[in-house]
Amino acid sequence: MTDRLAITYLLTCSPGESPAEKARDVALEQTVELPADCVPAEILESVVGRVESLEPAGDRHVARISYPVEALGGELPQLLNLLFGNVSMKAGIRVEEIDWPPAVLELLPGPRHGVEGLRRLCGVAEPRPLLCAALKPLGLSAGELADRCRRLALAGVDVVKDDHSLADQGWAPFDQRLALCQHAVAEANRESGGSTLYFPNLTGALGDLRGRLDQVRRAGCRGVMLSPMVLGLDVARSLAAESELAVLGHPALTGALFGRRHGIAPELLLGELFRLIGCDGVIYPNVGGRFVFSREDCLAINDRLRRPLGGRRPAFPVPGGGIDTSRLEEWIERYGPDTIFLIGTGLYREPDLEAGASALAGLLRQVSCGSRP
Amino acid sequence: MTDRLAITYLLTCSPGESPAEKARDVALEQTVELPADCVPAEILESVVGRVESLEPAGDRHVARISYPVEALGGELPQLLNLLFGNVSMKAGIRVEEIDWPPAVLELLPGPRHGVEGLRRLCGVAEPRPLLCAALKPLGLSAGELADRCRRLALAGVDVVKDDHSLADQGWAPFDQRLALCQHAVAEANRESGGSTLYFPNLTGALGDLRGRLDQVRRAGCRGVMLSPMVLGLDVARSLAAESELAVLGHPALTGALFGRRHGIAPELLLGELFRLIGCDGVIYPNVGGRFVFSREDCLAINDRLRRPLGGRRPAFPVPGGGIDTSRLEEWIERYGPDTIFLIGTGLYREPDLEAGASALAGLLRQVSCGSRP
Repeated sequence: MTDRLAITYLLTCSPGESPAEKARDVALEQTVELPADCVPAEILESVVGRVESLEPAGDRHVARISYPVEALGGELPQLLNLLFGNVSMKAGIRVEEIDWPPAVLELLPGPRHGVEGLRRLCGVAEPRPLLCAALKPLGLSAGELADRCRRLALAGVDVVKDDHSLADQGWAPFDQRLALCQHAVAEANRESGGSTLYFPNLTGALGDLRGRLDQVRRAGCRGVMLSPMVLGLDVARSLAAESELAVLGHPALTGALFGRRHGIAPELLLGELFRLIGCDGVIYPNVGGRFVFSREDCLAINDRLRRPLGGRRPAFPVPGGGIDTSRLEEWIERYGPDTIFLIGTGLYREPDLEAGASALAGLLRQVSCGSRP
Repeated sequence: MTDRLAITYLLTCSPGESPAEKARDVALEQTVELPADCVPAEILESVVGRVESLEPAGDRHVARISYPVEALGGELPQLLNLLFGNVSMKAGIRVEEIDWPPAVLELLPGPRHGVEGLRRLCGVAEPRPLLCAALKPLGLSAGELADRCRRLALAGVDVVKDDHSLADQGWAPFDQRLALCQHAVAEANRESGGSTLYFPNLTGALGDLRGRLDQVRRAGCRGVMLSPMVLGLDVARSLAAESELAVLGHPALTGALFGRRHGIAPELLLGELFRLIGCDGVIYPNVGGRFVFSREDCLAINDRLRRPLGGRRPAFPVPGGGIDTSRLEEWIERYGPDTIFLIGTGLYREPDLEAGASALAGLLRQVSCGSRP
């Protein structure tokens, strides 16, 4: 089995649909795209997915189907395709888990920095969560954004990252924003002795991405944020592989895949695939915020980002999306020190941005002193 | 309004949720990602989406929200992000329509060949549908696939295209498949006096795509198939823009977006976005086949691919996904001559591939003689 790629699906049958036929149909659709009676016997045996097991689970069924690793042809896009290409247009098929054989992991380098490396970049050796602030809103000038950067850095925030809607708009063009924000953070660090990092949002037409990545590096930034589903997963992998920068993965557009009965489980897409393509931290919408993730989704994502996986480095969970700062202590308790808390709205609600950020930064620093906040 | 990008959403409220608040929330989430009371007044006015109208529609609401074109910053990834980036992780939000202002269309060239150009490449001046055969299955050698190509070309199929699972697997590596299949089709054309085209599936790691596109062109192919959602929409746009090849867009992975209450309408994604990024034909799963599209979905996709749109060329609808060949006449009647019928399984079920393909090709040729089949 280790030379095969086994995928676990949760199947929801419509009335009259047979679970065994549905599982077999997935195995055929994702390889030969033909009914079994049109496929040569040798290919049925060696190429078509093999239903390894099928078990009822409440009103659904869990099917484990294995595929020959050769079906991937060594390409990440073809892995996506095998996972959920054509079956995305069917119904009641949810991809839950992948058993990663070594030959497939070879395509997927995992984080370059990981939890330890990103801690090092932030100068935070002690076992406490990191604080990340979202730089917003769209519509401010580069100078205004840089001023917010400066105040967030002086407050001791570990990472300031662009909102994912900040692209190359005229209000704050990428070049200007990069230069002014990185300068502001560097100045604030000199002033305070701190080590805040600024991660710009890397977006753009395909032909501009590499140039921008170089610009970011040359400006002295140590990382970027990018949205793998928007850019393309293999674009994100390629950018992460080419650069020495840390990468925060943003979940924009992924929500379309998170149907309860049809799609890809969020812990698989955000927790494993984003990690394996090279994200050092993965942003996701925390339960209780503006989005629809459950507590179980969040815990499962955290687990998948951190657990052992073929020698790949663990990545930071970065819960965000409307974290209620008055409940931050509860989340620290629940998620543990290897977490980056991403605060946006909670900071901009404060009468004084710097004081608000400083209070949160102080709260996180207490964790490492052993005194649970 | 013409300088603004207006997006129409179908909103499904959960119990207790206000439609007006939900619409306003979309407008904020997709721009500033902050509640209104944290946003400077000037930005609220000039940057945040504006709810232009909100009307009940059965148990749902239709909201029309306009955004300043500047919010896109001239980038296709940011358009995707604005359309469904963060709201993908909410619930009950379906993007139905975009009013395309000229400034946004400038980013999107549309098909290079379109319906007329692809007809020319195929040597089919008469007003009849085209016949496209899927080359399959995965697992055959390049020589075996080339033999199928030859027989399909001799039968008078207009386009033979790789199955979208054919990548660079050892069974039929891309280089070999390209060389042998294109050679087989060219030989068959010489023998028969026909003008069948072979469109290989363009896939691969990001760094290999351009090289492969060049190879395809140098081999003498006139087009390729690619999967925009798998590669990334802007990768597909970029490849289409750089090459003179015709492009068939495959819908792999898009099905995740087609929720009835949450997602992007298939006619918008496949019918407009795929056309605008440069697809000359767009494959979609026909109603009544192996997939879940409705008759209305299919008709709406056809309409969006062909209707006037900012001077962009019309693209071919390419219904496939298990077309019952015994009902082909009905589909011809319903979809009209500017359609490419994609037949896969229907051909491989035939006792003789060449005879089966020849019968279908003959059927389509009758259409142009004015005798409805």
